[in-house]
Amino acid sequence: MSLRYALLALLTAEPLTGYDAAKRFGASVGHVWHAPDSQIYPELRRMEREGLIAGEQVRWGPNSTKTRYSITDEGVRAFRDWMATPLDYAPVRDAAHMRAAYFEWTDPDRARECLQRHIEHYTEQIARWRATREAILDLTNDTIATRMRKFPVEDHERIIAFKAFAYDGLIGRGEAEIAWARQGLELLDKLAPAEE
Amino acid sequence: MSLRYALLALLTAEPLTGYDAAKRFGASVGHVWHAPDSQIYPELRRMEREGLIAGEQVRWGPNSTKTRYSITDEGVRAFRDWMATPLDYAPVRDAAHMRAAYFEWTDPDRARECLQRHIEHYTEQIARWRATREAILDLTNDTIATRMRKFPVEDHERIIAFKAFAYDGLIGRGEAEIAWARQGLELLDKLAPAEE
Repeated sequence: MSLRYALLALLTAEPLTGYDAAKRFGASVGHVWHAPDSQIYPELRRMEREGLIAGEQVRWGPNSTKTRYSITDEGVRAFRDWMATPLDYAPVRDAAHMRAAYFEWTDPDRARECLQRHIEHYTEQIARWRATREAILDLTNDTIATRMRKFPVEDHERIIAFKAFAYDGLIGRGEAEIAWARQGLELLDKLAPAEE
Repeated sequence: MSLRYALLALLTAEPLTGYDAAKRFGASVGHVWHAPDSQIYPELRRMEREGLIAGEQVRWGPNSTKTRYSITDEGVRAFRDWMATPLDYAPVRDAAHMRAAYFEWTDPDRARECLQRHIEHYTEQIARWRATREAILDLTNDTIATRMRKFPVEDHERIIAFKAFAYDGLIGRGEAEIAWARQGLELLDKLAPAEE
């Protein structure tokens, strides 16, 4: 269900065709709520049927049209309602931590590889989150640039600050994951020193 | 698919009936890979059909029997194979961070409530993780106590150390979430000071 609120969030910045919505999604709200294109298109159609967004045919090339979706007043209301509703927290399902709990079932080199991969994964993710955070702060991210044009200047500071804050959270969590994996590498060295 | 490896992990400690497996699951590996009982029972039956575990009828009360499941050699092999296979990382789907990115769509008091709830959620989770970690270290956790009886003394240190390490990771991540939410409360105060 969160996908529709992620799409509503995106469409508060500007009307978008399905194609552009999918593209923009991946470079903005998709960082916190991932969804493949194959979920985005049908969800947009469902949201249109339910009146949360309105589709309008726009020209696309010389002989064709595309549907461009705008958020409706009902969509804005639904988004604000979701924003004000307490969240349910999903229970933990974390294969990396599960595996670490049973490292005695693999050899220490495999365990080390697993932790090194964990570090690499979060290092890459943090680089992406930092780049997006920078693009938000300097307004080179397309979605934030459009959003700035739509909302009054006095709102800009907080609009930007909240988005940067969300990325700060992802970055902080990623750093905690890396610190944990490093602790694990030290533990492996302590339990089974690497052979000379 | 990870559920079956979580169940195999659990059954490496001892054979269990479905009922006991579900109970033990919640107090051990279920902290890192949550699953409701309604998923555990059918998965055990599938695993039995596939030869990863073997069911044996055991007496249960005066007139009844229950199936007790033991991990088979094939199950141990499947578990070791999984332990040695690089993990795929699930993409981020995080409603709390998504919501924080759009706090301008709710009033500051609702945003504060959201962050306070985030702090409460992770404070509770950390307390549970710490308690389980302690119960592993002092061998009062049922699953670890049984596991210690099954494996040779020279393995005990690392069996315990890896499990404590997994919980360290959850705790560290929880602490990062709390630090982030506190940063958000400060941000809200800065952007919209609480009224006198």
